[in-house]
Amino acid sequence: MKVNGTHYRSLWWNAQDDVLEIIDQRSLPYEFITQQVKTLEDFEDAIVEMRVRGAPLIGATAAYGMALALKLDASDAHMDAAWERLNETRPTAINLRWALNRCREAMRPLPEAERAAAALQLAHDIADEDVEICRQIGEHGLKLIREIAAKKPAGEPVRLLTHCNAGWIATVDWGTATSPMYHAHDAGIPLHVWVDETRPRNQGALTSWELGSHGVPHTYVTDNAGGHLMQHGQVDMVIVGTDRTTRRGDVCNKIGTYLKALAAHDNGVPFYVALPSPTIDWTVDDGVAEIPIEERSPRETTHIQGTMEDGSIGVVQVTPEGTPGGNPAFDVTPNRLVTGLITERGVCEATPEGLAALFPEMAGA
Amino acid sequence: MKVNGTHYRSLWWNAQDDVLEIIDQRSLPYEFITQQVKTLEDFEDAIVEMRVRGAPLIGATAAYGMALALKLDASDAHMDAAWERLNETRPTAINLRWALNRCREAMRPLPEAERAAAALQLAHDIADEDVEICRQIGEHGLKLIREIAAKKPAGEPVRLLTHCNAGWIATVDWGTATSPMYHAHDAGIPLHVWVDETRPRNQGALTSWELGSHGVPHTYVTDNAGGHLMQHGQVDMVIVGTDRTTRRGDVCNKIGTYLKALAAHDNGVPFYVALPSPTIDWTVDDGVAEIPIEERSPRETTHIQGTMEDGSIGVVQVTPEGTPGGNPAFDVTPNRLVTGLITERGVCEATPEGLAALFPEMAGA
Repeated sequence: MKVNGTHYRSLWWNAQDDVLEIIDQRSLPYEFITQQVKTLEDFEDAIVEMRVRGAPLIGATAAYGMALALKLDASDAHMDAAWERLNETRPTAINLRWALNRCREAMRPLPEAERAAAALQLAHDIADEDVEICRQIGEHGLKLIREIAAKKPAGEPVRLLTHCNAGWIATVDWGTATSPMYHAHDAGIPLHVWVDETRPRNQGALTSWELGSHGVPHTYVTDNAGGHLMQHGQVDMVIVGTDRTTRRGDVCNKIGTYLKALAAHDNGVPFYVALPSPTIDWTVDDGVAEIPIEERSPRETTHIQGTMEDGSIGVVQVTPEGTPGGNPAFDVTPNRLVTGLITERGVCEATPEGLAALFPEMAGA
Repeated sequence: MKVNGTHYRSLWWNAQDDVLEIIDQRSLPYEFITQQVKTLEDFEDAIVEMRVRGAPLIGATAAYGMALALKLDASDAHMDAAWERLNETRPTAINLRWALNRCREAMRPLPEAERAAAALQLAHDIADEDVEICRQIGEHGLKLIREIAAKKPAGEPVRLLTHCNAGWIATVDWGTATSPMYHAHDAGIPLHVWVDETRPRNQGALTSWELGSHGVPHTYVTDNAGGHLMQHGQVDMVIVGTDRTTRRGDVCNKIGTYLKALAAHDNGVPFYVALPSPTIDWTVDDGVAEIPIEERSPRETTHIQGTMEDGSIGVVQVTPEGTPGGNPAFDVTPNRLVTGLITERGVCEATPEGLAALFPEMAGA
């Protein structure tokens, strides 16, 4: 999407220098810094240090890492060694392993002389496929926004609310929850987005940066505000992303999503989840009972990073010394609170039948 | 309650020096600083600068201010002038005006020679009455906690959750929502309190300071966490305070309270409100429709204060420069989500009948 009037993906191939370029996301939302990724060490560093973040973007980055490895030395031994090195950068990221495996399996049958070019093309394909999934989610979500806009007086904005950053910088382009927003904005539909702060890591600041950079009107609010806004008719639709959705449509997403779903349900506000099909976990049914929730460092709740008055990055501690902190990172929204799932194949109900109708080949018999 | 093993009220009379002492709450939760309030200017400063905060505490402080004024000059003219000066310190605080009026009306009929002593006694009485109301709320809440404890295996803590700081430092002692907690802790019932951070002003840090200082086990969590905790059976009871409760029991309280009430309702967790009767607004029925919600400075959402590594107080900005912020300060929890109201006269249902039965003389016919 756009940054200072120029269209960017979160990674792109610089054909002139024959090198991958990325946005160093550690500096967002304070500074926009791009960087060339030239060596395997650079690739490891980019993923480990979270210069790139978000499952789809990590997967695409890893694919370019395999392409570089095969350009340096296209042997099976070197390919396997690169697979190992890249796989260790973020061992729990599903897309990372998926991209590495896909690359290795596709290259293995090829003569060594063809591997470098084929691997680079595959990396391009993986990135393009992610863009296409997100674009399709945006097209389907756009229809829902159009329907709301059609019922409003001309010029009155559709008011959306989102939680966390399911944005273009977590994918290759468009994002998931943000894709319908960008599509609607680009189609000329007036929008206003309430952006949840999303404590403890304040990813709402990233979403605000994205929306602001692309020119989408928005307001940053605390996570506490959404219920009040919905009570007073200030929200027409909620759209969030998901880290994992079960086969019956229970939605695991950033902590606090469940509270917004409850408020939406209590106030008759439609609650949608933007859902790329790779995030469906067909092996899990009851999300609350079955999905283990990561407990992260308490320091994320007690200490907050931002910019100081002089522009430097600083950290403040908001609690008294020694206060114990708790930090569950995700929660699960039961499918009964979800109005619909916006997938790349269309919108469906958050039910086993709804998902199976769109993805029969994955849902099984 | 206790600070470093010593019992404190949030204000107290130093009979030796014939002067009021307060805690300078601006330094909490980082430092515990007490201060003598010696002149009328000191009184104005204490309220304007929020060295004292919380409606009951402000009222009691103002009463001591009137006592000082009458000690300096007991004439009607000076009393009226002091009333004006103190009344202007926080013009919208109901308890402030109430305490000033009560003092002036009681002193007016007295001979000037008796006024100073009578006004000081009245200030003591106002402070003691507030302590007594909060103590009674604690006694009634204690019964509810005992009932929960009785159903648990011996030694297993009752897990409470609270939002914002309805604590002893916002009253003269005990607090409102915290009073049942202190009573239960002092009675030897094992407790664990989940303390909501309470963005944007992070009053959870004050509650953590209070509970930690008195020795009550607790964990500081983001406002987003409560729904997940309730889903997983980690909360036995929610107790919050209130800024204003309507005659039918709709509860206006710090923004985000409504979301916790929804989660409690969805998970069968009892949701109680500690309610000193002066905070009942008998003129209002439908809280969502009728209570105007204060919109505060967006800077409270985009900038966060805390301690820096060197111990100094610092502020960081979490959003990109220029991000618009929204900051509704309160929300209203509809009475259908409230299990009960814990008042100084006992516990009642959040209904017109429930409140009228406890306070017939205020509810009218």
